[in-house]
Amino acid sequence: MTDHLGPALEGTSPGTSPGVTAPAGFRASGVTAGLKASGRPDLAIVVNDGPRHAGAAVFTTNRVVGAPVVWSRQVVADGVVSAVVLNSGGANVSTGPEGFLDAHLTAERVATALGVSSGDVVVCSTGLIGERLPRETLLAGVDLAAAALTSDAGLDAATAIMTTDTVPKTAHVTVETPDGAFTVGGMAKGAGMLAPAMATMLCVVTTDADVAAPVLDAALRAATAETFDRVDSDGCMSTSDTVTLLASGASGVTPAADVLTDAVRRVCASLARQLVADAEGASHDIAVHVVGATTPDAAVAVARAVTRSNLFKAAMFGNDPNWGRVLAQAGTVPEEVAPFDPEAIDVAINGVLVCKAARPHADRGEVDLASAREVHVTVDLHAGDAAATVWTNDLTHDYVHENSAYST
Amino acid sequence: MTDHLGPALEGTSPGTSPGVTAPAGFRASGVTAGLKASGRPDLAIVVNDGPRHAGAAVFTTNRVVGAPVVWSRQVVADGVVSAVVLNSGGANVSTGPEGFLDAHLTAERVATALGVSSGDVVVCSTGLIGERLPRETLLAGVDLAAAALTSDAGLDAATAIMTTDTVPKTAHVTVETPDGAFTVGGMAKGAGMLAPAMATMLCVVTTDADVAAPVLDAALRAATAETFDRVDSDGCMSTSDTVTLLASGASGVTPAADVLTDAVRRVCASLARQLVADAEGASHDIAVHVVGATTPDAAVAVARAVTRSNLFKAAMFGNDPNWGRVLAQAGTVPEEVAPFDPEAIDVAINGVLVCKAARPHADRGEVDLASAREVHVTVDLHAGDAAATVWTNDLTHDYVHENSAYST
Repeated sequence: MTDHLGPALEGTSPGTSPGVTAPAGFRASGVTAGLKASGRPDLAIVVNDGPRHAGAAVFTTNRVVGAPVVWSRQVVADGVVSAVVLNSGGANVSTGPEGFLDAHLTAERVATALGVSSGDVVVCSTGLIGERLPRETLLAGVDLAAAALTSDAGLDAATAIMTTDTVPKTAHVTVETPDGAFTVGGMAKGAGMLAPAMATMLCVVTTDADVAAPVLDAALRAATAETFDRVDSDGCMSTSDTVTLLASGASGVTPAADVLTDAVRRVCASLARQLVADAEGASHDIAVHVVGATTPDAAVAVARAVTRSNLFKAAMFGNDPNWGRVLAQAGTVPEEVAPFDPEAIDVAINGVLVCKAARPHADRGEVDLASAREVHVTVDLHAGDAAATVWTNDLTHDYVHENSAYST
Repeated sequence: MTDHLGPALEGTSPGTSPGVTAPAGFRASGVTAGLKASGRPDLAIVVNDGPRHAGAAVFTTNRVVGAPVVWSRQVVADGVVSAVVLNSGGANVSTGPEGFLDAHLTAERVATALGVSSGDVVVCSTGLIGERLPRETLLAGVDLAAAALTSDAGLDAATAIMTTDTVPKTAHVTVETPDGAFTVGGMAKGAGMLAPAMATMLCVVTTDADVAAPVLDAALRAATAETFDRVDSDGCMSTSDTVTLLASGASGVTPAADVLTDAVRRVCASLARQLVADAEGASHDIAVHVVGATTPDAAVAVARAVTRSNLFKAAMFGNDPNWGRVLAQAGTVPEEVAPFDPEAIDVAINGVLVCKAARPHADRGEVDLASAREVHVTVDLHAGDAAATVWTNDLTHDYVHENSAYST
């Protein structure tokens, strides 16, 4: 079963890891610029001190994107990234030419402070859409953050990018190779607007492996496809998603491509799992495992259909093993996408086979949903050998509350 | 603007109309069979006394369907329908061969009581998925309902098919033609699982027009495409949606096809609008009007993307004119589906142009969402002349509550 998120947290020191500063060759900082009314930290910088400055990134596929995404796409095009600057307290989306200038000037200010080219500085912003950031506050914050950079402040940086997150998300792994060890570390934020085609969030992953940008790019795309892309908190695709991967080469180790990819995947999986665990207002983390599919894509399509159902998610909140809502969602997937016989489907919830061949089987009452946060729903299509898992959360009163009050 | 639901209720006597018994040639009944634990009415019959017995129906496009849908698809294939029997208290979905037999025996019992062929009896069931109906209770209820048939009990029938609906939904219109008058009447139920590709519900529409089945079929498909198909309460497609249209010919009037279609559309529009007004836990009915699209399909695609957003719907619940969430959803529609320039989009909420050319315009504070249940959001894509409207509801605490407690 392709579920990298299941055992995701193992060996990654979630939450307590220094994250982006775990690998050699990186410094970071997180400071309070004053962008948030709450007075909490809101600006972070991650800088790659080299010797290599390779970078790659994946962005939201939304056609409406923030100025930072427009800027950063240009930055990563040449595979060279020296630093990433990230702010919470405003997404800088739908802000017109002045908003783009805000992003540009932010990169310039970082570049001046660090002595690098502004064209090598990725910019990320998160928060409300449709409001300008206060430019002078932002730029003064950059100076503050540049002055605070240290090689052990990864957790500060992870804290400064939080919005409705309740805890910072960090992870790292160190991998031994015949040529020596290398480390991959990362941080992420995101608690709502987590959707397919990339969970909505900002994420920076760093490594001291000595690899070129094309290798980084391939590793990042492979890793996100099976981790962040398989998290769907609320079906809403963001305008700002950015995952950046930086390589400093400071370990002097050049791992095989698959070894690098696996390490990046482990860090992304841990961060994605941490996002699910901290999703807005959620009381259950739900893994929808689809097995017996004809292809992995078919399995993902069925799993996504289930994870997007408000009725299913509300039932999970009520600790109600309502497998009819699982079947009803499976049935919405077109046959050309996922061939299966609707009369053959089995559904198990937390190990209890409540539906066999599309009919009631074990008593619903045997399913215990109340005693654990994690829920596992397995849908067997009996159509092939492929499998996939998508994670989501339940739909709760707190989700409604947080998202009806966010901008007011 | 293609919005048949806007003025939908005008002249249709919503709620107080006799609905299916408004046209000549129909009797109906609604009784308590004992399928619902609450003891409320739960079984209805609508019978077409002719002289004509033409019928047509549209069904859910879900691949997982209830036994009644499998049965009724066969019934309507020949264009002859004598009666419709409908029960609440159980959907008879995922109930295996015994469940199919329940549906079959229900049609047989109706046929015996009315002296018609069981192959001309449409069966509809609504309620929980995955539980068998109590067969003897159901069949005894059929006898009770058959004995109660009268030509003025349309409102009783509409009441007996309610599940979480709080009010019965009925409507009718009478249309004068040069050859005389004909009437179209209807009833519907549905308060959750209202989704695209047909709002989830049961609906029976009757007319005393003297028209053949192919004309009925065309009128029904045209009417549902612009009414029920443009309602999306919670994005969840049902396994049981059935809209049946019956013609008795009792008026002796054969209207032109477009005149019939328009009358059927008016009744469907009124019923669809009543469904939105009674959606589970909703506090706002929200019309998303998309204008300036290249084609009607493009307009519908953008409108649907907005109406499916939990974040947008939660913001509406909070009376928060969060237009950023509208833009973010528009941006999720692929360019090949809806070509437009994301930088050109305008958004008005209740007449206040809060976003012009994808930038803040009028002050959000000018938007009044608190003083009315109905909300109008207009998205101008500035890409063409096509328009469409999709209706939805806000996402509320009551929605979460009702759907986390439904089966328990």
